[in-house]
Amino acid sequence: MLPPLAVSIGDPAGIGPEIVARAWAARNTERLPPFFAVGDRRAIAAVWDGPVEVLSVPGDAAAVFDRALPLVQVDDPGEIVPGDANLAGARCALDSLELAVGLTRGGFASGIVTGPVSKAQLYAIGFNYPGQTEFVAERCGIAAANAVMMLAGPSLRTVPATVHTPLADVPRLLTTELLVNKARITAKALCRDFGLVRPRLVFAGLNPHAGESGTLGREEVDIIQPAMAALVLEDIDVRGPFAADTLFHADARATYDVAICMYHDQALIPLKTLHFEDGVNVTLGLPVVRTSPDHGTAFGIAGRGLADCRAMIAAIRMAGECAARRAMAAHAV
Amino acid sequence: MLPPLAVSIGDPAGIGPEIVARAWAARNTERLPPFFAVGDRRAIAAVWDGPVEVLSVPGDAAAVFDRALPLVQVDDPGEIVPGDANLAGARCALDSLELAVGLTRGGFASGIVTGPVSKAQLYAIGFNYPGQTEFVAERCGIAAANAVMMLAGPSLRTVPATVHTPLADVPRLLTTELLVNKARITAKALCRDFGLVRPRLVFAGLNPHAGESGTLGREEVDIIQPAMAALVLEDIDVRGPFAADTLFHADARATYDVAICMYHDQALIPLKTLHFEDGVNVTLGLPVVRTSPDHGTAFGIAGRGLADCRAMIAAIRMAGECAARRAMAAHAV
Repeated sequence: MLPPLAVSIGDPAGIGPEIVARAWAARNTERLPPFFAVGDRRAIAAVWDGPVEVLSVPGDAAAVFDRALPLVQVDDPGEIVPGDANLAGARCALDSLELAVGLTRGGFASGIVTGPVSKAQLYAIGFNYPGQTEFVAERCGIAAANAVMMLAGPSLRTVPATVHTPLADVPRLLTTELLVNKARITAKALCRDFGLVRPRLVFAGLNPHAGESGTLGREEVDIIQPAMAALVLEDIDVRGPFAADTLFHADARATYDVAICMYHDQALIPLKTLHFEDGVNVTLGLPVVRTSPDHGTAFGIAGRGLADCRAMIAAIRMAGECAARRAMAAHAV
Repeated sequence: MLPPLAVSIGDPAGIGPEIVARAWAARNTERLPPFFAVGDRRAIAAVWDGPVEVLSVPGDAAAVFDRALPLVQVDDPGEIVPGDANLAGARCALDSLELAVGLTRGGFASGIVTGPVSKAQLYAIGFNYPGQTEFVAERCGIAAANAVMMLAGPSLRTVPATVHTPLADVPRLLTTELLVNKARITAKALCRDFGLVRPRLVFAGLNPHAGESGTLGREEVDIIQPAMAALVLEDIDVRGPFAADTLFHADARATYDVAICMYHDQALIPLKTLHFEDGVNVTLGLPVVRTSPDHGTAFGIAGRGLADCRAMIAAIRMAGECAARRAMAAHAV
């Protein structure tokens, strides 16, 4: 039987504790795979009055899951007030993340789901990675460039080729090599983790109307098309580059499995327009399964019963499905 | 009584003739305002077997509209084969556009709806405007910079501050003055043509997460916020700049009347994701009402009965509504 998933609660003053707890409460109706939380007991108790059982050994999680939210306790951060971000909370968020990754790498968990953290708070305690993704990648021995962010909702998957960078820098950062690498990792992961036999990739153009044959920008001709040609040689199913504005209505979405987008908003605008409440951020290319709800800490509504736990539920479900596919593939070999 | 609308058929080898004719056929079920087509009779007959009546004077259009599609015939382009773009067709498209604008300026029509043209074909016959919008603006004595493109669907309106330009040029082209001008014209037009008393404008940021207070790009701080400050002094209701990926889900859309976007795809991706079949392109700031279906000539499917006429119907309906509001306002004064 597959080990449970490890779910880090993220910043304990954000909505992480409550959405993890409420996902557990919905475990039966949502048919969620077993998981345990990694974080602070009091932070959960401050926002939820359901049963929590602190594990002495992580291997007990599966047995506990039916009757209580299993929790691996990190170092006590002291009292956490919902909505009140502070350094102790940031330390707790980092401990939770680190422990969740470690337990997953150690085989005690079949995958990791990361709750939302505050980058500003993490930076304040010396965290020097752009985000959780790069931290997880490093702990797995993977170069950050080979950890690919994919956003996934029920009707759309997108991969931004560039992510947290000013828009003005995007044309300079786009290279054929970058696109080939991202697309190759994406195609492999859609086979391994999502069960697609021959994933269909489409490329969005960078420019309006995908550059109109070079008259509205040359990146399609000079960068994207050469990348696609290289991918065809690897027998990867690619089409495009298409005008980005024509790629995301229902009929278009039905023709592909993932859209490779050139920049953050090109990938995130359609995803959140369609799936604001249940979008999942998946990291492809890692030796472990890793997902995350596609939203932030929402300090402003933490602890008030207003947080929407659908994205956390979707992230847990997706991590469970990906982990199961990897396990099956391992047994098949 | 308001004069009918003038509808140019666009390129006669594209889907324009059939979607105009089928919009007329649906005039009762769709409760469309009276309109007449401007174009070529044979191009329509090649793709549609309904009744067409060539007008000797445009004033007869309203009387004809009940029993036949009224048509103002342009110079005979010779035989037009659906899907076969050629220079005679381009000439016919330009004649149709020019005549439709002239008749509207002359008071024979209450507004103009332009069918889809091929820019490549128009350029080949010496047309030297970026598109139909700039041509219409010039014929109305308006500088192209003051003719603002708005995309409108049933649940979203967007205005791209820059349009057909390579993405790499967008940061350089964005200025505070440009944004103030576009937003001011938009706000006025939403009052005059769309009946909003105090339109609510939101600004999208240029960069991911709207620049995160300048750490992911400075255009929000240096260009967008000063524009918003200037608009507030004119008592225009503006909010933002917001992360573009959080602006277009249903709950967000309910909080504003129009989103001012920084570039083509930022405005067009959400619009077409949501309203691919019935998006309307409206030109704001002109002395005449002008709308257009938000799609191209679709030469590939012309004449095969496959074209979707919903966007043309939406464009005709919207032009009629805007024209009626202008007429009422004129009477009220």
